[in-house]
Amino acid sequence: MSEYPLEKHHLAANTIRGLAMDAVQKAESGHPGLPMGMADVAVVLWTNFLKHNPQDPKWPNRDRFVLSAGHGSMLLYSLLHLSGYDLPLAELQSFRQWGSKTPGHPESHLTPGVETTTGPLGQGLANAVGMALAERWLAERFNRSGFPVVDHYTYAIASDGDLMEGVAQEASSLAGHLALAKLIVLYDDNHITIDGSTELAFTEDVLARYGAYGWHGQRVDGHDPVAVKAAIEAARAEGKRPSIIACRTQIGYGSPNKQGTAKAHGEPLGVEEVRLTKENLGWPTEPAFYVPDGVREFMSRDGKAQAEWQTLWGHYQEEYAELAITLEKMMRRQDLPDDWEAVLPQFEAGKSLATRASSGTVLSAIAARVPSLLGGSGDLTGSNKTDLKGEKDIRPDDFSGRYIRFGVREHGMAGILNGMALHGGIRPYGGTFLVFSDYMRPSIRLAALMGAAVIYVFTHDSIGLGEDGPTHQPVEHLMALRAIPNLTVIRPAEAGETAVAWRAALENADGPTALVLTRQNLPTIDRQTGGAADGVRQGAYVLRDVDEPQVILIGTGSEVQLALDAQKLLADKGVRARVVSLPSWELFAGQTAEYRHEVLPPHIKARVSIEAGTTFGWERYIGDEGLAIGLDHFGASAPYETIYRELGITAEAMAEAGLSLLRR
Amino acid sequence: MSEYPLEKHHLAANTIRGLAMDAVQKAESGHPGLPMGMADVAVVLWTNFLKHNPQDPKWPNRDRFVLSAGHGSMLLYSLLHLSGYDLPLAELQSFRQWGSKTPGHPESHLTPGVETTTGPLGQGLANAVGMALAERWLAERFNRSGFPVVDHYTYAIASDGDLMEGVAQEASSLAGHLALAKLIVLYDDNHITIDGSTELAFTEDVLARYGAYGWHGQRVDGHDPVAVKAAIEAARAEGKRPSIIACRTQIGYGSPNKQGTAKAHGEPLGVEEVRLTKENLGWPTEPAFYVPDGVREFMSRDGKAQAEWQTLWGHYQEEYAELAITLEKMMRRQDLPDDWEAVLPQFEAGKSLATRASSGTVLSAIAARVPSLLGGSGDLTGSNKTDLKGEKDIRPDDFSGRYIRFGVREHGMAGILNGMALHGGIRPYGGTFLVFSDYMRPSIRLAALMGAAVIYVFTHDSIGLGEDGPTHQPVEHLMALRAIPNLTVIRPAEAGETAVAWRAALENADGPTALVLTRQNLPTIDRQTGGAADGVRQGAYVLRDVDEPQVILIGTGSEVQLALDAQKLLADKGVRARVVSLPSWELFAGQTAEYRHEVLPPHIKARVSIEAGTTFGWERYIGDEGLAIGLDHFGASAPYETIYRELGITAEAMAEAGLSLLRR
Repeated sequence: MSEYPLEKHHLAANTIRGLAMDAVQKAESGHPGLPMGMADVAVVLWTNFLKHNPQDPKWPNRDRFVLSAGHGSMLLYSLLHLSGYDLPLAELQSFRQWGSKTPGHPESHLTPGVETTTGPLGQGLANAVGMALAERWLAERFNRSGFPVVDHYTYAIASDGDLMEGVAQEASSLAGHLALAKLIVLYDDNHITIDGSTELAFTEDVLARYGAYGWHGQRVDGHDPVAVKAAIEAARAEGKRPSIIACRTQIGYGSPNKQGTAKAHGEPLGVEEVRLTKENLGWPTEPAFYVPDGVREFMSRDGKAQAEWQTLWGHYQEEYAELAITLEKMMRRQDLPDDWEAVLPQFEAGKSLATRASSGTVLSAIAARVPSLLGGSGDLTGSNKTDLKGEKDIRPDDFSGRYIRFGVREHGMAGILNGMALHGGIRPYGGTFLVFSDYMRPSIRLAALMGAAVIYVFTHDSIGLGEDGPTHQPVEHLMALRAIPNLTVIRPAEAGETAVAWRAALENADGPTALVLTRQNLPTIDRQTGGAADGVRQGAYVLRDVDEPQVILIGTGSEVQLALDAQKLLADKGVRARVVSLPSWELFAGQTAEYRHEVLPPHIKARVSIEAGTTFGWERYIGDEGLAIGLDHFGASAPYETIYRELGITAEAMAEAGLSLLRR
Repeated sequence: MSEYPLEKHHLAANTIRGLAMDAVQKAESGHPGLPMGMADVAVVLWTNFLKHNPQDPKWPNRDRFVLSAGHGSMLLYSLLHLSGYDLPLAELQSFRQWGSKTPGHPESHLTPGVETTTGPLGQGLANAVGMALAERWLAERFNRSGFPVVDHYTYAIASDGDLMEGVAQEASSLAGHLALAKLIVLYDDNHITIDGSTELAFTEDVLARYGAYGWHGQRVDGHDPVAVKAAIEAARAEGKRPSIIACRTQIGYGSPNKQGTAKAHGEPLGVEEVRLTKENLGWPTEPAFYVPDGVREFMSRDGKAQAEWQTLWGHYQEEYAELAITLEKMMRRQDLPDDWEAVLPQFEAGKSLATRASSGTVLSAIAARVPSLLGGSGDLTGSNKTDLKGEKDIRPDDFSGRYIRFGVREHGMAGILNGMALHGGIRPYGGTFLVFSDYMRPSIRLAALMGAAVIYVFTHDSIGLGEDGPTHQPVEHLMALRAIPNLTVIRPAEAGETAVAWRAALENADGPTALVLTRQNLPTIDRQTGGAADGVRQGAYVLRDVDEPQVILIGTGSEVQLALDAQKLLADKGVRARVVSLPSWELFAGQTAEYRHEVLPPHIKARVSIEAGTTFGWERYIGDEGLAIGLDHFGASAPYETIYRELGITAEAMAEAGLSLLRR
């Protein structure tokens, strides 16, 4: 212990403090307090434990480091810069400026070495759980005696705010249950939140709570590097449980007038206080962004760890060629089949099947061919049909299974799915009822922002769920999800479309996809005539056409059937109506104008849409002269056929709307 | 103890089991397991402790009973029916049917005696915390020595699912912090969730976790009425901390083949198993919905408790007339001023002020005149400007304050606000950043469904927040909130509109209102000419008109200023443009067609909207020929003026759009 290089340590920690102060001051906004308070802990971690290669930020077997308290972004940027990532000092000097790689909160798609996008509190911790879960699962599948090819830790820095958030609590409880021993959380126990002392609102016994979850807990002086090192060693040695280390720190460490107070939290210290702080730390007041000689050397990592692993990997490729090829394909997202037509199940026309049921069939069929597919449900397995045929549950003592019981923890699930996707090697999916997508929105949004390819299986997608009533019946959720940039929402009309929807979801590498599925049965559409289900991949297609249509009937999901029925009703009255199935607004928006006009010819203004949800937004497709059939209020508890009828979401109403448009 | 009327107890508990089994069987859907498992606990509570008056379900000083595990609705309906509420047996026989008062999950606006709408797990527990907080706060303000006019308990039944949800964890942590001693949670510790055993995903030590939050905890056999009674007595006697009693029960108690298994959770037992269960319980197999003599008598409550309180209240009215009048006004929601013009602050035209700042000024001014106003922020007090001038924080040992530090617990806050609103006597508000409205959506939706008059103060409402970047910049949130039925969203353009927005929010008694406010400064509009700010109450109004407008420029919030600038740019080019401020789509939709056409004359098709958020949905107001200026992707981290400019949300872009429409 006496050999700890304290001098170098303090130089590095103070460098980080200086960079953080100066960057925030220059930007005139930001959070200096956390980087200054956690600099010691971070330097201990990054110089003694963190296994990474700044020259190859995507090395698969690197340790994952998550700054859950993303507002302390200058800590992460300083660490990345000093240890040799492609993040020059000039980037730190453009902190929070247009076009820089140092945004206010860390963004994983923007900055090399940033593992996940954080800022919204609690999310990073849930991501870290997902990464640790991914590591554990891949290790179990691919490691062989003497070949720990998947073997890394996941470290997270979490703040009081992180630990207050429900998403972190849910994910932490599951991490304890699953005994994710290679997850180590460094808790910045600084007793301060934006509003002031944690005495204002947060007086629980955090370590006792984590103990109740089944975690290993320690308390340490966060400004004592030797003690921090020992604590991390103990956490790693624990071996059976995830670990949390409460690091007692002073926010804004070193600032004579603001240290230990909320004033150091979320605003620049001020020019004068920066000067006083530097003096107090024995730091040159000039130049700003000062990095003393030796600090980069002390912090930097060469490629040695990766090179050693590469040797191991080479031997593994020889010994276990097939496994190595599979793992490599998974890590590179190259494990999708070429013969989709053979993989996707065929469904018999006319047979009645809920899309959640056909989804279950499709999912199991795909999973047999796509080894990276791993997911579960928020305690609604039987309802979501998310289980994989012939695959076991993952259990604390046995990760050879392929199904995750997330518990009634939708938000935690969504945050964990993000972490699994970010880890690599896994195509994660998770199921719940569509109405509970609301519980998951903050994580869904981050998946969309990061471009994380998570798949959501949202069943029970409308009043069609019937008796459970308004608390469980989505009304606004389809539109609210469609409003999220870079989220692809697909609501298939029946079994055939459901199969294609799964394919589209798996082929979407750039962001999350939500599959929106029914509880109630729907007839499988006969594809002998009319549009092929493959049209789902274009987002919308002409399902049943007529010569010179007078009216266009547009439906999504279960209501496509009503549009088909309405077409017949109109035909009986001599009206020619085209039926368009529009399962995905986002995919359709991505088509050429030519295709879009082919499906929805601009000159046909008589358009009726039908969807068992809010009509808000449908103006986009029906235009000024169209009519939207839907639901602009909450649902009701009754058998679903009754609800549809009583609320007027019927083929008759649609046909009548079509007629009324022609009468105008 | 030996005097416990065990025979009557078992008769009542088995009656509930029979009603639950029969109702679920008849409906062919529902959850029999919880009512059968918790019947004993509920009967103990309702016959020994619960202070209520079935003849007056809204008696202000009743104990509150929350069935957080709303899927067990037949437990609540049975209790209400048997104890004498206006819920005849015929209603139980129409469980989950169209038009009945017994929907799949309990709905407070529908069924007398249902205190809150539950089903989405975790919410009810957070509501219960809000009710207990409301009681404690009103008690502190209004009780006087010998006059405990506000003095009741809040009881909640919670399931494993409730306790897994983050919203419940957040709210429970705050309840522990605030030492809400009159909150007693009865935890249905049945070891079963829908997916199966809690061993699958939920193995934490729940009581230890609640201990860490600062709660009192007990463990009891949930089928031993004497023990349950003793535990509730001990919880009431505790006096300093909220209590949780883990009641070990058998889900589906009495069912020979399904008791203690997930099979009893969420589906009918089956005709044969219902018969076997009744036989096993020594219950007549016929008739269904059997209520033996004496059970209603045993369960029923007369008005005695209320009558005693009424006497106390009468004396209180004499002794403390002013207090009594105030409390009565608060409970009846009659405490709004008549002289709004005098109450609302005036703002100097031309001065630059963020709407969050004018909101803060308005809020403090209103609070001085509206005693029921009580709220706080999710640890963003200084940013949200939600504190009340001259008022203290509420603290565990001192509830004389008027400001709640919710901590970084947005979802818990929202669930608690619902509980406060439902309790009565309080107009609750809560603040956070608009982007974090996502964390609160499940509770916001329930407020809308219940018609709970909660006010949300959402600041930092767009890319206008600048440097914090995309994680903190709302894009889709305005539209996603507008999509929720019965939620009123108001995004004022400047100080004058902000004042009126607060008035509109307080006058909305039928549902929640979201105030959407800027971080950045905005010039206060000169009202000497043009439309008055009072137009906010109509949702939209003509702010600056011209003779025979050729173009309509529509803006909301901070972008109204850009529309005003665009009007000038267009005038310079000889184009006559009307500027419409559209702060609330919901309020505008509630106006007559005549008024709406006055503001947006149908014949003027050249319309441009501007809003720093998704353009999705704007088709409703701009029509087929209009143009929407907005943001259909995530934002960026930089000073806000730069972001607006770089992303093209400018007066110049709006003017150019207007010109292009006229050129068509």
